[in-house]
Amino acid sequence: MMNNIKVERLLVNYKTLEMFKRFKEYGNQELSMLEDLESNIIENDSESPFFGIYYGNALVARMSLYKVSAKYDQYFNPPQDYLELWKLEVLPDYQGRGYGSALVKFAKEFQLPIKTNPRINSQTFWEKMGFQKAKYNMERDLGENPLIWTPKGVAEQSVS
Amino acid sequence: MMNNIKVERLLVNYKTLEMFKRFKEYGNQELSMLEDLESNIIENDSESPFFGIYYGNALVARMSLYKVSAKYDQYFNPPQDYLELWKLEVLPDYQGRGYGSALVKFAKEFQLPIKTNPRINSQTFWEKMGFQKAKYNMERDLGENPLIWTPKGVAEQSVS
Repeated sequence: MMNNIKVERLLVNYKTLEMFKRFKEYGNQELSMLEDLESNIIENDSESPFFGIYYGNALVARMSLYKVSAKYDQYFNPPQDYLELWKLEVLPDYQGRGYGSALVKFAKEFQLPIKTNPRINSQTFWEKMGFQKAKYNMERDLGENPLIWTPKGVAEQSVS
Repeated sequence: MMNNIKVERLLVNYKTLEMFKRFKEYGNQELSMLEDLESNIIENDSESPFFGIYYGNALVARMSLYKVSAKYDQYFNPPQDYLELWKLEVLPDYQGRGYGSALVKFAKEFQLPIKTNPRINSQTFWEKMGFQKAKYNMERDLGENPLIWTPKGVAEQSVS
């Protein structure tokens, strides 16, 4: 079944933004994209940091991915470019079909370390995907519960 | 009624950590405090970044506060020390009694700007407390929905 799942980069347009409203984690990022589109600060159909999965014409799963530059890396050793992953979400009616896993697998294919700060209670999913808790460091993590995944040869940065 | 509410700094000890388990946002931070206590990395009854309100002997509300140094300030103008506030939470049976407001008022009394990244759907509360949305900047905010409060004479930093 997983073979039929296609992950694609989402374009910023009114249709995408309308579909985003069905997701729980609709917030400042989406509102800001809408404002930028309305005021022509960004072009229609420009690339967004979101990737998603369609079921027919409906967007049913999505995540946001952003490459953080090595100079800001506080998580991995050696310090390097890594991916921040957020807003991984599958609409309730479409859960349990492997869409969440397909998105995470897609992110791993960039072969960069990944950091995410998932909602509490999704621990089991992330463990299954090979993520582990980063050692908590208050100055860096504040209220976050960061989880990390590392490709071969990459270790966690030690924190004081 | 607000006059009877006393906000106090919480000490790290087994009793506090046991009471933290009643809060929804129990995560890496609390687990890390417990490990540090068990392995004597931190002393019993040392100061924590948490402030809370007791009702009798029970901790019924809490928040975490941390002063971020001016050199890391990406939110305020002029750049300055500010407070990051997180895990503001009142136990369900004690909501609607002004405990949340009392905690935020306490934080404001330091007369430093405040930044928080609240859960979605708490918008009304934060507006009532004088907070406003920071202009979203993806590289800085990633998946966050930052809200800020500024004392007189402090403005928001403009972002590109």
